[in-house]
Amino acid sequence: MSFVFRRPVRFDEIDAAGYVYFPKIVALGHEAMERMIGEACPGGYAAWVVERRVGLPCVHVESDFRAPLRFGDELVVESTVAKLGDSSVRFDVKVGRGDGVACATIGYVVACADLAGPSKRALPDDLRAALARYA
Amino acid sequence: MSFVFRRPVRFDEIDAAGYVYFPKIVALGHEAMERMIGEACPGGYAAWVVERRVGLPCVHVESDFRAPLRFGDELVVESTVAKLGDSSVRFDVKVGRGDGVACATIGYVVACADLAGPSKRALPDDLRAALARYA
Amino acid sequence: MSFVFRRPVRFDEIDAAGYVYFPKIVALGHEAMERMIGEACPGGYAAWVVERRVGLPCVHVESDFRAPLRFGDELVVESTVAKLGDSSVRFDVKVGRGDGVACATIGYVVACADLAGPSKRALPDDLRAALARYA
Amino acid sequence: MSFVFRRPVRFDEIDAAGYVYFPKIVALGHEAMERMIGEACPGGYAAWVVERRVGLPCVHVESDFRAPLRFGDELVVESTVAKLGDSSVRFDVKVGRGDGVACATIGYVVACADLAGPSKRALPDDLRAALARYA
Repeated sequence: MSFVFRRPVRFDEIDAAGYVYFPKIVALGHEAMERMIGEACPGGYAAWVVERRVGLPCVHVESDFRAPLRFGDELVVESTVAKLGDSSVRFDVKVGRGDGVACATIGYVVACADLAGPSKRALPDDLRAALARYA
Repeated sequence: MSFVFRRPVRFDEIDAAGYVYFPKIVALGHEAMERMIGEACPGGYAAWVVERRVGLPCVHVESDFRAPLRFGDELVVESTVAKLGDSSVRFDVKVGRGDGVACATIGYVVACADLAGPSKRALPDDLRAALARYA
Repeated sequence: MSFVFRRPVRFDEIDAAGYVYFPKIVALGHEAMERMIGEACPGGYAAWVVERRVGLPCVHVESDFRAPLRFGDELVVESTVAKLGDSSVRFDVKVGRGDGVACATIGYVVACADLAGPSKRALPDDLRAALARYA
Repeated sequence: MSFVFRRPVRFDEIDAAGYVYFPKIVALGHEAMERMIGEACPGGYAAWVVERRVGLPCVHVESDFRAPLRFGDELVVESTVAKLGDSSVRFDVKVGRGDGVACATIGYVVACADLAGPSKRALPDDLRAALARYA
């Protein structure tokens, strides 16, 4: 099962060339992960980061951009858990427009970390279970 | 010859986990390109984008993150033109800290575009010459 | 009638001190205006900016910050059209947290502009009507 | 004595209407403060925030915007310490363009805070001395 969300492009995601700035597109990998965790864990990703000091920092990202995104476009973001390791997760993400055009793909890999270090740690069981729904 | 710049991490590049947010790191690929063009072209990248309506949108990016960056760290960014095609450019970028620790690598590929379309076009000769200095 | 929206604080709205960065709070004045226009005008604010090249740039803003906002907090934003002039609009905005604490106030004044100039112009009638619902 | 810095408008400070987004302009009040402290205190503002957990969150800001800023413009920012209280500081900031046009004014008030609370505290003596140079 994949996780899908839709939202308009934000006014401040546009750059001086008139299109969505590419770092704002790769950030959609993170936004999808946050929303995914929010579906399954009370308090969402914030509860992990702020209260338990467990985070999922990005260790690798790769992205291809095929069609432009402008202010006024609707983003359609579909994310799947492609690999669920002991302490890392890979998400495959497709970014499209509301009119059906495929705009970008993102391969997004995070590692579970104790934020105090930061140091690597195993994924907590409840976080793993939350993500496994989208594997 | 590679192009190198140094600057402090900005206050607003930090995320809720306390480290530089990864999209801010991939954006350093763009910042290096802009600064590189600024060295060689009068008016810099802005003159291309605003006056000539020629841009270099990102078509591919890949990045690995190895060590954290915090507020207070100095960024040391080294960028090389790894491939200079007819209408595209690949930059290989290393991101380190002032204390010498290697933090991230970025492979950053842009295509030359008429921004009015946007549509692909050949790199203008003077822009190509500016980038060739760092090949 | 006031316009109200709720959303979680975003991961990238936090600064290096651990709280929502104050420019992200004043930006809520703009976000409320955009959402307000989106309720009443087909295509929302983007249709004005992109297609008609009419915008509402900020000419004045004043803001007081009373209580901190953190990652994990829910924003509750209430905006009212306090003054609707020929070519300008003043919004009074209250920013609170989901737990009921009042965090900030924003007085946000925009002027209607032909973006091509930019130059001042009268508010188009349909845009005025959209905003008058919240006066 | 006032504190002055110059830098180009950044690519990602432009919004969908084609001008510098107003929250990026009010953020220049903070940037000027950071650079001011960086002149006088080893480690700059980051040493305060990260090591000593003392910050200067904004409690009030007011800003007027008179002329537009575009990609390609040079920012000229002049900041003065207008009032230095026991636990608060008011900065008066002028934002101009490299061509001499006055674009914006910012009145920017911060309160000294123990970030752990956050709770109000007196300005540390060395921080006060650093700021007093620009009073």
